[in-house]
Amino acid sequence: MYHGSTVHELRITYPSWIETVVDWRRRYRTDEEKLDLAIALSRDNVERERGGPFGAAVFEVASGALVAVGVNSVVRLRNSALHAEMLALMMAHHQRQSFTLAAPALPAHELVTSCEPCAMCLGATLWSGVMRLVFGARREDAEALGFDEGPVFPESYRYLRDRGIEIVGGVRRTEARAVMHQYLSRGGTIYNR
Amino acid sequence: MYHGSTVHELRITYPSWIETVVDWRRRYRTDEEKLDLAIALSRDNVERERGGPFGAAVFEVASGALVAVGVNSVVRLRNSALHAEMLALMMAHHQRQSFTLAAPALPAHELVTSCEPCAMCLGATLWSGVMRLVFGARREDAEALGFDEGPVFPESYRYLRDRGIEIVGGVRRTEARAVMHQYLSRGGTIYNR
Repeated sequence: MYHGSTVHELRITYPSWIETVVDWRRRYRTDEEKLDLAIALSRDNVERERGGPFGAAVFEVASGALVAVGVNSVVRLRNSALHAEMLALMMAHHQRQSFTLAAPALPAHELVTSCEPCAMCLGATLWSGVMRLVFGARREDAEALGFDEGPVFPESYRYLRDRGIEIVGGVRRTEARAVMHQYLSRGGTIYNR
Repeated sequence: MYHGSTVHELRITYPSWIETVVDWRRRYRTDEEKLDLAIALSRDNVERERGGPFGAAVFEVASGALVAVGVNSVVRLRNSALHAEMLALMMAHHQRQSFTLAAPALPAHELVTSCEPCAMCLGATLWSGVMRLVFGARREDAEALGFDEGPVFPESYRYLRDRGIEIVGGVRRTEARAVMHQYLSRGGTIYNR
């Protein structure tokens, strides 16, 4: 099954509408403001893209500057790894041109996501170098829709906290969950189960 | 910190030397033959790329046909998510143009990797749709070098097995570990710790 080397290039992009949702110049002061952006991304991903009901963003902790965003792109880009958090973290590395967001020359970063990360995204959070993780809806909210969150246990969170990562969950949970239910009522694909 | 939309494209490629190592036409019959390819990739990634000592490949289970490969590309592409397994799985999705390798029209797939997957890659394995996971070196071999494997527990493996994924570890462990020690003796970067 030979396939030429040109096949071996992945191009990972945002949906074309992303610039109409995101204001790159704005400073986000509170966790609630940051979650509002992640949830707005999740909502537009459902309404415009028919994509998974998940959005995420990476910020500088101190300034509240926005570094990168992500929306679930599993169906759009036909790639099971492209959860919202993965896209946001990979775009943040690209924007900072660094394989760690904890590089000495960089300010501290945080990942904010509309729903509790799955096993893959929680691992990626650890490797990315973010100092904070903030999420909206909880694991059981995703599972209630039929999504699988994978092997995440209480000791998984302990593992990250032991390595200095602050974790805050349940911020704007009701609003985040509402988008997830909107997705279900539209007959959206439950791709990992 | 506005950055124009052209910045928002990730291009994920293989290193230029990959075609000299990989024979796309060959059929791989045994787990040992498949591990030999993953380890050869890990070795060339250290010797030619000064990259992390990890290689991986996705095969069709029944035919032994090679679908995609991966080498650790964290430093090369400045992206903490680009472990060998992630690159192999993402390239496999791209090659198959499907967000699940378990799609009804596709044959069964397997992921073969030179070292036990970290938390992120184990989660990605579950979402990818592969039916088998085969690895060489073990978690403690990676940890002995200073690499962190993240929150993976015995129940993480149980979680995958309960969902029908066969897991085989320790194949060609000595050979896989030898490349990891070669990396350390060359002063390679231990990027996640």
